[in-house]
Amino acid sequence: MAVIVQKFGGTSVADLDRIRAVANRVAATLREGHQVAVVVSAMAGVTNQLVTWVRDAHADCDTREYDAVVSTGEQVTTGLLALALNNLGIPARSWLGWQLPIDTDGAHGRARITAIETAELRRGLESGAVQVVAGFQGRSADNRVTTLGRGGSDITAVALAAALRAERCDIYTDVDGVYTSDPRIVAKARKLDKITYEEMLEMASLGAKVLHTRSVELAMKHNVRLQVLSSFNDEPGTLVVDEDEIVEQELVSGITYSRDEAKITLVRVPDRPGIAASIFGPLSDAEVNVDMIVQNVSEDGKATDLTFTVAKGDLKAAVAVVEVHKGELGYAALVPDPNVVKVSVIGVGMRSHAGVAKTMFETMAAKGINIQVISTSEIKISVLIAEEYTELALRALHSAYGLDSA
Amino acid sequence: MAVIVQKFGGTSVADLDRIRAVANRVAATLREGHQVAVVVSAMAGVTNQLVTWVRDAHADCDTREYDAVVSTGEQVTTGLLALALNNLGIPARSWLGWQLPIDTDGAHGRARITAIETAELRRGLESGAVQVVAGFQGRSADNRVTTLGRGGSDITAVALAAALRAERCDIYTDVDGVYTSDPRIVAKARKLDKITYEEMLEMASLGAKVLHTRSVELAMKHNVRLQVLSSFNDEPGTLVVDEDEIVEQELVSGITYSRDEAKITLVRVPDRPGIAASIFGPLSDAEVNVDMIVQNVSEDGKATDLTFTVAKGDLKAAVAVVEVHKGELGYAALVPDPNVVKVSVIGVGMRSHAGVAKTMFETMAAKGINIQVISTSEIKISVLIAEEYTELALRALHSAYGLDSA
Repeated sequence: MAVIVQKFGGTSVADLDRIRAVANRVAATLREGHQVAVVVSAMAGVTNQLVTWVRDAHADCDTREYDAVVSTGEQVTTGLLALALNNLGIPARSWLGWQLPIDTDGAHGRARITAIETAELRRGLESGAVQVVAGFQGRSADNRVTTLGRGGSDITAVALAAALRAERCDIYTDVDGVYTSDPRIVAKARKLDKITYEEMLEMASLGAKVLHTRSVELAMKHNVRLQVLSSFNDEPGTLVVDEDEIVEQELVSGITYSRDEAKITLVRVPDRPGIAASIFGPLSDAEVNVDMIVQNVSEDGKATDLTFTVAKGDLKAAVAVVEVHKGELGYAALVPDPNVVKVSVIGVGMRSHAGVAKTMFETMAAKGINIQVISTSEIKISVLIAEEYTELALRALHSAYGLDSA
Repeated sequence: MAVIVQKFGGTSVADLDRIRAVANRVAATLREGHQVAVVVSAMAGVTNQLVTWVRDAHADCDTREYDAVVSTGEQVTTGLLALALNNLGIPARSWLGWQLPIDTDGAHGRARITAIETAELRRGLESGAVQVVAGFQGRSADNRVTTLGRGGSDITAVALAAALRAERCDIYTDVDGVYTSDPRIVAKARKLDKITYEEMLEMASLGAKVLHTRSVELAMKHNVRLQVLSSFNDEPGTLVVDEDEIVEQELVSGITYSRDEAKITLVRVPDRPGIAASIFGPLSDAEVNVDMIVQNVSEDGKATDLTFTVAKGDLKAAVAVVEVHKGELGYAALVPDPNVVKVSVIGVGMRSHAGVAKTMFETMAAKGINIQVISTSEIKISVLIAEEYTELALRALHSAYGLDSA
């Protein structure tokens, strides 16, 4: 009998009516003949409230206490879902991170799972009882509560699916799958039936909010078949699987955007060896991540313009670091620009097909959009453009790559 | 260096401002040179909300899940108080029931503490760090979360004080001590400086709400010096101690009342052996506790009236049980009366002084109050009277025993 892991996010367990709806959905999966392990988040809003209290109690707090407090939301929904299942006549029990246990390292607030003990879970599953596991939490070696950080309950679900060698890990959320682009901007965006881990990873890191990169990485590593689907309807969702499972691979699967970008241009930086290191070394020391970098060809062999991007929240810090080193860097001017967006075209089909980049550049040119920076990987092309062109660029690219729904 | 255990109830940790006030109070105790272990309840209202959700999820629920859910309130306040202490520069850490562990039996929802492991706590205390322990919760032998039931955090505090051989266990609450009577009714009621365990036990079981009987029993058993005081001011509270510690014992320490009483009179019950058993046996089987009982002298040797009291909430069930057995009991009529109150006079001084009962009866008679049932023990006299006389009786007795404040 196959094990299915189902994970329900905060909006899916936002109140008792929603928790009862989740219980009914679990019951339906049981009736299909599966063994079901469920992972739940806290009720929507609860964790934020707890985090606010913690910050209020101590601005720069001991993360061990942070974890003890913010992990309680999942404890509540885990017990309530077990009870809602019991109320349908279905045997069920709750599991907290320390009970299984779910062992993690000691990096409180962003812990990594090191092991999940599944012997008792398996016994429970084989007896026909639903096993309801608290998401987002674990136990450190010194017996403290840990939490896994952003996307933590998804990570719990994927890790549990891997440990149980589950048939599938269903991530129930408030959207019904992964789309070719953001439907709020691109009206013709389509839901994808399947997408590869690699593409999902790029989409997650390039702005699609539906799954966090850490859970996709974990799924890819352990070959866990993920499904993203809505708990608010009965439509099939999007399967995230290995490339082998996708017979007819489209050239491009999705077009994402990220507004969390800021650009810094250093005008007339001396064109000498080691200059890049003397700029990016201090930024790295200040924990500022640099994403895209472009250096113009030097016209006179003496100086060149250098442009790079950082997260919008890091712009101020990055400018400060570079200005401190102005003397040794010797640039003529520093031009910060927070009004930029990164638009990315993603698809494993790019590996075997040329022309994807060409279509992108032609489309941007046809719409009169200036490309400021370009970066590419094996399965994606990203361009930095002025933020005001975001919607225009997304819609034009969506059409150009033939992704529009009929 | 002496260990002090301080327990703060729900109104004392109702929000972050209150939690910060608790941190300041703990800091002051540390400055006095004590080692401090703190036990906290959930924020006022939180546990009730959790209980409502649990009941909503499953009316007749698995108490193991009930415990997992309702124990989270204490987990939150424990972490927040540790952080508020850190914020004052005071080292502190939180402890959950399963972490110490606080071992209990498996009677979920009303578990009894069987052992508290204190080695790590002691190390922490000796290092000067405040140890903040979640009240109300423990761990069963099969690794589930248990809760201790009503008054649970007080029980945790007393058990912890016993395990640590603490100098004193201070129970901070929203009243500033134990009074000679309810100050809302008796304006001249006085706060007691000291009271014996036995008196406190009687007062708790006879209507005074300030401490739950279980925590007083535990304190008495382990000779833990308890202090009841307010977290809203700096007044000294009431010490609950062994009789030996009280040099000048007053005759009467307090006058309590309980409105949670109902009376049933069976008119003309046959006066034959075994009749009491055939009434009270079925009531006991139906889990109805009978408190006071009085049987009139039979006038004709054939039949007598029998009166007894039960908790108000049990009146309907008690009447139903007795009516089912009407045939075999053979009484003429059943008269239920929920409009009664039990007024009690309590004092260890009664043991060595006659005349306490006489004062009670004379006072009632002088005010024209009819005594319906009487029951006595070594250190208390209780009378059942019509509810409408509650205030009159309390004030008259308070004066008669010389308890009025100047």
